[in-house]
Amino acid sequence: MPCPIARSLERVGEWWSILILRDAFKGKTRFDQFQKSLGIAPNMLTRRLNTLVESGLLERRLYSEKPPRHEYVLTPRGYDFRPVLWALVAWGNKHFPPEGETVVVVDAQTGEQADPVLVDSRSGRVLRGPEFTVATIPATGVVKLRSSVKVSGAPKGRRASVAGESKSRPAKHKKAGTSS
Amino acid sequence: MPCPIARSLERVGEWWSILILRDAFKGKTRFDQFQKSLGIAPNMLTRRLNTLVESGLLERRLYSEKPPRHEYVLTPRGYDFRPVLWALVAWGNKHFPPEGETVVVVDAQTGEQADPVLVDSRSGRVLRGPEFTVATIPATGVVKLRSSVKVSGAPKGRRASVAGESKSRPAKHKKAGTSS
Repeated sequence: MPCPIARSLERVGEWWSILILRDAFKGKTRFDQFQKSLGIAPNMLTRRLNTLVESGLLERRLYSEKPPRHEYVLTPRGYDFRPVLWALVAWGNKHFPPEGETVVVVDAQTGEQADPVLVDSRSGRVLRGPEFTVATIPATGVVKLRSSVKVSGAPKGRRASVAGESKSRPAKHKKAGTSS
Repeated sequence: MPCPIARSLERVGEWWSILILRDAFKGKTRFDQFQKSLGIAPNMLTRRLNTLVESGLLERRLYSEKPPRHEYVLTPRGYDFRPVLWALVAWGNKHFPPEGETVVVVDAQTGEQADPVLVDSRSGRVLRGPEFTVATIPATGVVKLRSSVKVSGAPKGRRASVAGESKSRPAKHKKAGTSS
């Protein structure tokens, strides 16, 4: 699948999986901790944990030999999922504000509340539409814009061409956007 | 529920819902467009679309009177979900790189590829652990840290106290983090 959203959801595209990851970030590692937090049926929890282990987001570790007991800890891949969760935190707080209390992202040292926003690390610009959009990069290195946004000019660096244009342009035998 | 992730997932916590939103961002609005793109059963698609309408992420609009036909367009709330999708795009591309082609976030004008990263809009710092964490804000305005991170000092502004500490501290009758 070319779409990384679909590829990602294959691994975590499910309510329980995302809540398990959320709990893992809170420091939970053991089956009974997840079960208590989520109130999920044991067979369902086993299945979701196994999927997250198979997908490389959690690692299963033996922490007791007699009786044999395992814990589940975040891998670097699982750890990298945090921005997705925090983007969800920001969206949820903005659009579904709770009564009583809520959860926010804070500076771990000072406790000051952060305001999560997605930016382009190269330019520092906030990633929003219509200034930004998504595009497909085929192996030929020509970027096809998915939306009907007009493309003006073609500056140096990674470039996009409107859909269709790629057919009339000689393919570049270089993969775009993977080297820098 | 205090957790905005759980509150959010109530509305979109499902593979199909997120893929419908993805397609909506690609400009799809009609039932048959979503169905063709997703290969989803009609009754399932109807159910997911209705949930997204009820949750205020999509708006149902009549675009033809005879026969009556509706389209589904993103609301401001649905539109605001884009950073979550783009954070997923970045994560999927990093951890599940495809063969052939993939989808990336690009500047709509120049086509240059963006590198999505979540930052704190106030300080510009990249939001990652362990420098940042999540904390619960009760209505009393005292922030309880969820993790076992030590809190040093207590500078001005929104503050956090370690879990438990809030009990021995007089509650502030001000809601934290909502006024600025």
